[in-house]
This record gives sequence, C-alpha cells and structure tokens, in this order.
Amino acid sequence: MKTKAAVAWQAGQPLTIETVDLEGPKFGEVLVEIKATGICHTDYYTLSGADPEGIFPAILGHEGAGIVVDVGPGVTTLKKGDHVIPLYTPECRQCKFCLSRKTNLCQLIRGTQGKGLMPDDTSRFSLDGKPIFHYMGTSTFSNYTVAPEISLAKIREDAPFDKVCYIGCGVTTGIGAVIFTAKVEAGANVVVFGLGGIGLNVIQGAKMVGADKIIGVDINPARQEMARKFGMTHFINPKEVENVVDAIVQLTDGGADYSFECIGNTTVMRQALECTHKGWGRSIIIGVAEAGAEISTRPFQLVTGRKWEGSAFGGARGRTDVPKIVDWYMDGKINIDDLITHTMPLEDINKGFDLMKRGESIRGVVIY
Amino acid sequence: MKTKAAVAWQAGQPLTIETVDLEGPKFGEVLVEIKATGICHTDYYTLSGADPEGIFPAILGHEGAGIVVDVGPGVTTLKKGDHVIPLYTPECRQCKFCLSRKTNLCQLIRGTQGKGLMPDDTSRFSLDGKPIFHYMGTSTFSNYTVAPEISLAKIREDAPFDKVCYIGCGVTTGIGAVIFTAKVEAGANVVVFGLGGIGLNVIQGAKMVGADKIIGVDINPARQEMARKFGMTHFINPKEVENVVDAIVQLTDGGADYSFECIGNTTVMRQALECTHKGWGRSIIIGVAEAGAEISTRPFQLVTGRKWEGSAFGGARGRTDVPKIVDWYMDGKINIDDLITHTMPLEDINKGFDLMKRGESIRGVVIY
Repeated sequence: MKTKAAVAWQAGQPLTIETVDLEGPKFGEVLVEIKATGICHTDYYTLSGADPEGIFPAILGHEGAGIVVDVGPGVTTLKKGDHVIPLYTPECRQCKFCLSRKTNLCQLIRGTQGKGLMPDDTSRFSLDGKPIFHYMGTSTFSNYTVAPEISLAKIREDAPFDKVCYIGCGVTTGIGAVIFTAKVEAGANVVVFGLGGIGLNVIQGAKMVGADKIIGVDINPARQEMARKFGMTHFINPKEVENVVDAIVQLTDGGADYSFECIGNTTVMRQALECTHKGWGRSIIIGVAEAGAEISTRPFQLVTGRKWEGSAFGGARGRTDVPKIVDWYMDGKINIDDLITHTMPLEDINKGFDLMKRGESIRGVVIY
Repeated sequence: MKTKAAVAWQAGQPLTIETVDLEGPKFGEVLVEIKATGICHTDYYTLSGADPEGIFPAILGHEGAGIVVDVGPGVTTLKKGDHVIPLYTPECRQCKFCLSRKTNLCQLIRGTQGKGLMPDDTSRFSLDGKPIFHYMGTSTFSNYTVAPEISLAKIREDAPFDKVCYIGCGVTTGIGAVIFTAKVEAGANVVVFGLGGIGLNVIQGAKMVGADKIIGVDINPARQEMARKFGMTHFINPKEVENVVDAIVQLTDGGADYSFECIGNTTVMRQALECTHKGWGRSIIIGVAEAGAEISTRPFQLVTGRKWEGSAFGGARGRTDVPKIVDWYMDGKINIDDLITHTMPLEDINKGFDLMKRGESIRGVVIY
C-alpha cells in the first residue's frame, strides 16, 4: 500500500512529506493507522545528527496513537479496529528481561530495532524500490506504519488519539519514573530538575501519589507558572541562590527523599544526587546526556546512603502499564491537555520541530 | 578508676601502652570491661594521619567485645554483667534516621562522637589531668572504656569475646552489605572486588543466602584458597584477563546481579558498577576511598537500569542486628574463627598493626 509520511533523508535536513510504499504486516506484525503523533526531543536528537546510532533515510516518530488496520499471521492479542499506542520499549513477556520482574527493558527485538528494521531484518517502508528505515520500532511520522505485536499497547477506544499519543513517550517517562521506577510514597519530598515536558510530568506524578514538598528547579522563571499548576509547591532558580544543593537541603530539613534529573546535564545530575537526604535519598536520572559525558561524585555520597539510579520509559512495561496511564488520564487523575500546546497537520511537522527547538511548545502534536 | 590502654599520641607514631584515668559512666553511659578487640584498617587509617577527621591524642579501637561493669543513671536496657559489643554506629531508635526505617545511620550523637567526646561534650579518659579523646564512640584499645548505652549491643553470654569482637566491624560490614543493604536473593550472581577481610565476609554472606555464582576478583592469586573456602565459586585475576568487566559479563551471561567493592579504589568502583546486569544490576560500595577521590561513569549505565549504592556498617542496626549475627556465628552459619589469624596481648598491638599493613593477617585480635 501507499502512505503519506515525513521522511528524514539525512542528518540536519528538514523532513520532506512523501508518499511511500508500505508492505503489509508479516508474521507477528501489525499494520496501524496512526491518528496522531507527538514530536519529541529524541526525534530531534536523531534528526540533528547528534545521535551516534541515527540511521538514514528513516521515518522518525515514536509517540503515536492509532487504530489497527490489519494483522499478520501469528498475531493473537490484537485485531482490526483495536486502538493502540506504539511502544519503542516493547514487552514480549518471554525474554530474560521481561521475566526478571526487575526491569521494563525488553530485549527480544532490540538488535533489529536498533538497526531500523523489523524482527526479520528487513524494512516495510520503501520509495522507488529503495528501502527507508524504521525508527525505534514505531515510525509514527507516517500515516500508516507496521510494528511488531509486542510493540503495541492496546488501549480503550474512548481515549482521544490527539491527547493519549503523548503517553507513548513523555507522559510515561515522567510519571512512570515517579510511580514505577522510584515508587515515591505519600509524604515524600521530591525535587525535579528541569521544568520542561518531562519535568512537568514528574511533578504531576509526584502530586498524584501524595508527595509533600514538590520542588522545581529551573533557570527559566517563566516555567514556574505551569509547574505550579501541575503541583509544584516550591521553586528554586539556581541563578538566584548561592548553592542549589544547600538551598534544597535547607528547604527539606536535610535533603530530598527523591530527586529527578530531567535535563540531560551531567553537572545537574551530580547536584540532583547530592541534594538528597543522607541515609536514604534516591536520585533518578531521566535526561539523556550528550555522547561521552560522564557523571561524578565522591563515593562517600553513596556510602552514606544515597542511591544513584536511572529510568527509561518511566520504568513502565509498555503493554501492561501504558493502558493504565490512559485510564488515569480518562479518569482525570493526570492532565495531558494543557501540555499539548500546539497541533498541526503532517505537512507542518518541520514547524513543529522549530517550535520545540525554540522552547515555544511543551508538546506539539501532528494530527493526521 | 585507672585502666591500661594503648594511646595514639599523634599521627604516624606507634601507640604507647599507658595507665590512664577513666571517669565512671555519666547519665546514659555504661562502663565496659573490654575482653578482646580487633585491629581494623580504619584504626590504621586514622593513626596514619590520612583521616582528615582524626583527632589526637586518642584511644583508638572500634571492634571490641566485653562485659558491663557499671551503668550510669538513666540506663535502662543494660545492667552489670551483660555481655556487649560496642557500636561505632549507634542505634537510638528515636532520631529521624532510626525512625525512617530506611537507614542504619543513627545521627543522635554524631556531633560529639565525631569530636572524640561523650554526648555531654567531654571525655572520660585523661592522663596527668589532660584529656585524651575517645574514638568512634568506642575506644576499644583500652581494657576499660565508657560508651553511651545506645552504642552497645547486648549479646548472648556464651559467645567467645575473642571471636565475636570481629562482629563489631568487619564481619557485620561484609555480611550485612549482602543481607541488610543489598538483600541478595537465592540464585543471584554476585561479584566481590577485593578478597581481604571484608570481601571474605561478603562471600560468606552471599553463600549464606544461597547466591549462585560468587565471583571473587583480586590481583593477588594467593587469596583464592581462603576465598574458595568461604564460598567463592569463580576467581578472576584482573591481571590475567584483557578486560575484567567483559570477563564478568561473559561469566554471568550479561552481568552480575550484585557487585560489592571492598577495596576503596575508585577505578574498581566503576568496574564494579559496569559489570552488573543491564536492567537490574546493583553495585554496592563498601570500601573507603582516599579523601577527595571521585567515582565516574556514563549516565547511560544508570538509565539502562544499573543502580549505584553504598553500605556503611553493612546496613546493620547495631542493637537489633548485631546480636542476630552473633547467633549466626554460634549456630555455625558463618565462620569467624578462620578469619582471626593472629591474637596478641595489648602490649603487642603495634605488631598487630604491622602484620595488617604487610597483608600478613586477615584479622589480628588483642586479647586483654
């Protein structure tokens, strides 16, 4: 079949809208009509050329929602008409990782996914007979896409695509880090470094589970207002205090119970660790640092009881937890609407990237 | 009263045996006759002058066992004749830290303890009217010592002092890191960096809880034999493999579930983190690094599921857990006898330090 898609031909170039060829789903695969997709920093990171694992030409996009159009042989858990969110972190429920019960990082198809291919080592996308690579197993910047069954979370049919698509990455990454990775308990003091989209979702996750102080840290004071709306109780601008770690330790009577780094800055990661409470503070790295950057601290920080950890896709098991987060949204427990600041047709996707780069959108969403 | 004690007059000098004055126990304090004390690297670290918090003159020693001789007013949980192990990590059961249930690092008397004083800000030791400082709240290099009630674990009366004194530091630090800090589960793969006294205790802790592979790493092949006796199943000499991290990842089909750094070397700490399994590996720092040294890694190691942690006094709550470990020894579940390679009278304590410095003892114990 043919589908309209935004193609990334090479690093650093704008996407172009093309009508590409899409092969139908093979064994264990599913054809999905994407109804909406968010534009995430990770798409931009790859498009910019900074991602050492970026492959071109490719169809980017990993934050979508849509409807199953067709299923390949062997598919048992999805059928035509099901509403789904594609998962860049699949959940096969049979690999060592899934069975460990200790991680959400399913590895069953990691090899081919990293190469921009379906599990049989080929691509479904092509133009003029030349293959175009998949991206993160999802390629949601295409009106139709093919994904493995294990890379699709089935969700309720009354959830609006143009909102819940954001659960495919940003919402889950932020809220999940609080709920699935850190398991923050009611009454805890939480610090959030970076009040962009991820940080706002960390804040609303912390509010949802009954955290006490929810302290936001950002050098941009304009981000205060939205953060307060989402549950931030205190704001610290690092430019306005002598030492941000000391300011947090003072505000929390000894340090935060949990801290979350949502920027990708290794200097901030150290502050995030060291501002946590002696004896039990846990610091969760969410932000992606530039290639080669390293974090450092004195080991004494750990020997005296702090823990340094990380979170990918919010620790969420895609097929198990993503539908739960959709329920939370539909039940009004979390706010997605106010985070989606811009919508656009696929033709304007490059404008969406520009808005994001300039910090003018929290989340821009393409509606097909 | 008078007591025989080994006094550290200044950094870098041998101890001298003196008959010093000891004031009786004040409110909340207990007079203990020390019957045996281990000589630990931490005593040496302070004596050497490398410890930035070292204070002189002082009576060192923090790994003892003895009998209560007298109690001060207000003491309710101990009486004359009770057998006790002094605790450099006390357990008051009423400070924020004790009540958190998340840490063993009781802070109630940390301020005065760090200054070499009893909680009323004075010392009980003196010579010719000049005060001598306490050390770690224990000062077990004295035949009689005074300690706060909260710094004494009551133990069973049939336990031999010359063995269970080692539970006052080394045994608990190693076994506790496995059992109380990491909570290693049966079937886990464990790596232990450094096969000295702490490493051997980590090994026997891992064996006790049913770990599967217990891999020891040491540049000294002579340490293999004892380690195997304590439960080590595999040995890696970093000098004999191209890359110690790769060797461990290969041996464990992806990485260790838990690793323990028992040396205090920041380069090894990084290896200990990076050899653990993607998704769930936990690396516990036990060793004390030199002042100012820092640990580093790529944040990707944490974002992909590894956790970097530490352990002090094995995560053990002194008054609660130390008596349990004494029971484990008396029940034959752990081996202490083979770790105590040398005993000596107090007069020979400097020889004990020399043996330790030369690596010729696992643990030397002074018997009064």
